[in-house]
Amino acid sequence: MSDYETLRIDTSHSVMTVTLSNPPINLETDAMMADLDRLVTFLEGDLETKVVVFRSDTPGYFMAHFDIAPGPTRILPPLGAPPMHGVLHTRISHLDQVTIGELRGRARGGGSELLLALDMRFASRETALIGQPEIILGLHAGAGGTARLVQLMGRGRAFEAALSGLDYDADTAERYGWINRALPDTEIRDFVDRLARRIASFPASGIASVKSIINRTSSISSSVLSEDSVRFWREIQLPEVQERLAWMLANGGQTRGPMEDDLATNLARFPEKL
Amino acid sequence: MSDYETLRIDTSHSVMTVTLSNPPINLETDAMMADLDRLVTFLEGDLETKVVVFRSDTPGYFMAHFDIAPGPTRILPPLGAPPMHGVLHTRISHLDQVTIGELRGRARGGGSELLLALDMRFASRETALIGQPEIILGLHAGAGGTARLVQLMGRGRAFEAALSGLDYDADTAERYGWINRALPDTEIRDFVDRLARRIASFPASGIASVKSIINRTSSISSSVLSEDSVRFWREIQLPEVQERLAWMLANGGQTRGPMEDDLATNLARFPEKL
Amino acid sequence: MSDYETLRIDTSHSVMTVTLSNPPINLETDAMMADLDRLVTFLEGDLETKVVVFRSDTPGYFMAHFDIAPGPTRILPPLGAPPMHGVLHTRISHLDQVTIGELRGRARGGGSELLLALDMRFASRETALIGQPEIILGLHAGAGGTARLVQLMGRGRAFEAALSGLDYDADTAERYGWINRALPDTEIRDFVDRLARRIASFPASGIASVKSIINRTSSISSSVLSEDSVRFWREIQLPEVQERLAWMLANGGQTRGPMEDDLATNLARFPEKL
Repeated sequence: MSDYETLRIDTSHSVMTVTLSNPPINLETDAMMADLDRLVTFLEGDLETKVVVFRSDTPGYFMAHFDIAPGPTRILPPLGAPPMHGVLHTRISHLDQVTIGELRGRARGGGSELLLALDMRFASRETALIGQPEIILGLHAGAGGTARLVQLMGRGRAFEAALSGLDYDADTAERYGWINRALPDTEIRDFVDRLARRIASFPASGIASVKSIINRTSSISSSVLSEDSVRFWREIQLPEVQERLAWMLANGGQTRGPMEDDLATNLARFPEKL
Repeated sequence: MSDYETLRIDTSHSVMTVTLSNPPINLETDAMMADLDRLVTFLEGDLETKVVVFRSDTPGYFMAHFDIAPGPTRILPPLGAPPMHGVLHTRISHLDQVTIGELRGRARGGGSELLLALDMRFASRETALIGQPEIILGLHAGAGGTARLVQLMGRGRAFEAALSGLDYDADTAERYGWINRALPDTEIRDFVDRLARRIASFPASGIASVKSIINRTSSISSSVLSEDSVRFWREIQLPEVQERLAWMLANGGQTRGPMEDDLATNLARFPEKL
Repeated sequence: MSDYETLRIDTSHSVMTVTLSNPPINLETDAMMADLDRLVTFLEGDLETKVVVFRSDTPGYFMAHFDIAPGPTRILPPLGAPPMHGVLHTRISHLDQVTIGELRGRARGGGSELLLALDMRFASRETALIGQPEIILGLHAGAGGTARLVQLMGRGRAFEAALSGLDYDADTAERYGWINRALPDTEIRDFVDRLARRIASFPASGIASVKSIINRTSSISSSVLSEDSVRFWREIQLPEVQERLAWMLANGGQTRGPMEDDLATNLARFPEKL
């Protein structure tokens, strides 16, 4: 449990806290995905942990997004296979543990999709920014996020979030239902810790029932998730998309700096030289 | 129609007003459930009433919760049979009449689930408190409420409400979609009466269509309701749960006083002596 | 494309702007429906347009409602056939293009249902009024609107909107999820134009995926739409309904004036002489 490269794990009183720590922007690299995969495998067999909290200790970033730099597993898995983070998110959404996301800073693309796969999400009113900028590159949120947006905010707002690619602040995200609620940045950590400990103090029997019934009432059909994957891999092989990905990498993408800090604005400036 | 023990019924211009009156906390006792059962049976054959309003005249309480004191029908019905209030709520949600809940004071557990089974809910901004504290005892809202929370507030907020067991005030409940809207305590009664009379003045044809189409678009699958029941009866027989129920009864539960007034806080203090 | 009677069409940079222009109240007459039908047929074969914006240039009205004056196609189509605007709205909801509604002034009945069939809706905080007054006449929103209300605002608020027949202002409509968001009247046009142009600048691949996945996740079953139609045509032939329609026409309906300006209040005054 101790030697994760990009995660820090603390467990106390049946609450596990997973701190995402892959500075400078918590990019969802192969290393982070391998760590998350190992963590989820552990949790699938773990009967002690009742609640898992996901937070970040990287200033300004919960998780930038999926690593889009060329690489065999990420860019060209077997056609039709779901993207690795898609499988991961589906497994996370089926965990027996209660999962809570604490959002401070930016969560975009796969970072937003990870949050969407959790049971609940709370966000810092002052620092949170959440968005699905894939659309700007010719992609879409292909790890279950597009369908999960509909579940949380309804069809109309899901279209807006998925098609605008814009960042949403915590107050707007709360109004839309993207997050449970916005909290002052100084209070969010205590709020989430108290809620996690409270839930973990309850008998396991009721928690198991709530998880089962809510999951059955709000599951996403596997045929939609499968279309999600097939479309994602078709998209990412398009020359038009590859050209935009290359431009993003050549203009400050995937490192801390102006491009990532205001990704929704900057990606839409393609093919300008930034 | 006149000799209900725990309800007061007034009918005027096709609007029936059902006043819950089982002081001091409108506990959903066997007597109240028998009254509600009789009322629903009447309404199922009633072609005159178009709108039914549910309100309380017991200060501070719309309905405390299901009576958890030992008793043959309530605690140990045949395994697999739905809890009596579960059947009742399903029947209420299928009534031909339009049903409106007016929430002043507390509605917790089965009281919240009754409100969730109605077509609409309005709450007093100053006095309403709504919650599902079952989880604190190792139970869950087993009369359809857990699934209905998902319908009204989406997966993320339903997880929070069902797992925190906390009270939600009217403004938060409105933001979450748990209630239609929060209204000043001085205005809510007039608002609900005017809305009820307005709807009852319209021809029956359109009302029947709206009820049918919305019910078909938002029904809860009977297999989910059946899992709901099976799980509830398994939970309530667990020694861990029975111990908490006994502790609640021994520490001021089911009567007017500090335990019930702030149930969500106090239940979580188990096994302290209060 | 130029000779529409009730629409004005402008296309620029893959964004088509459809201006509804059937003064004085943008009544959804046979002429307007024929124009919309032609427009939708064009869009179904159009591979250039990526985003379609619907707005009105008629002061105070986005679209009053479906024309209820007697006429063979509108009042008595073959029993069981969906109302013409119902078919139209279903086709609009299946278009490959992204559709955005800009609501200034009133959208009631079929006008609200047209907006509900679009992908997103933005409304002027100061001037927008949206409602489904059909219920006051003994009808219901029979062109898919009733089911779409449930998708956007949940069961409880859908019941309220469909059964009260009242007008909802932009702030309430935003809180309920009926619209994406309320914007100042001076800013809405720029906001919508910017959003439309932004989306139209993105590659087609991601847009197609978002449309497909959100549509699959939030489609309305054809058996519900079919019940919707059958019920609508049954209702409209009822003597009680015909009497109210005739009264509405005799008391200022379908023209600019007090009846239409405050339709939700005035229709409920039947059978008074106005």
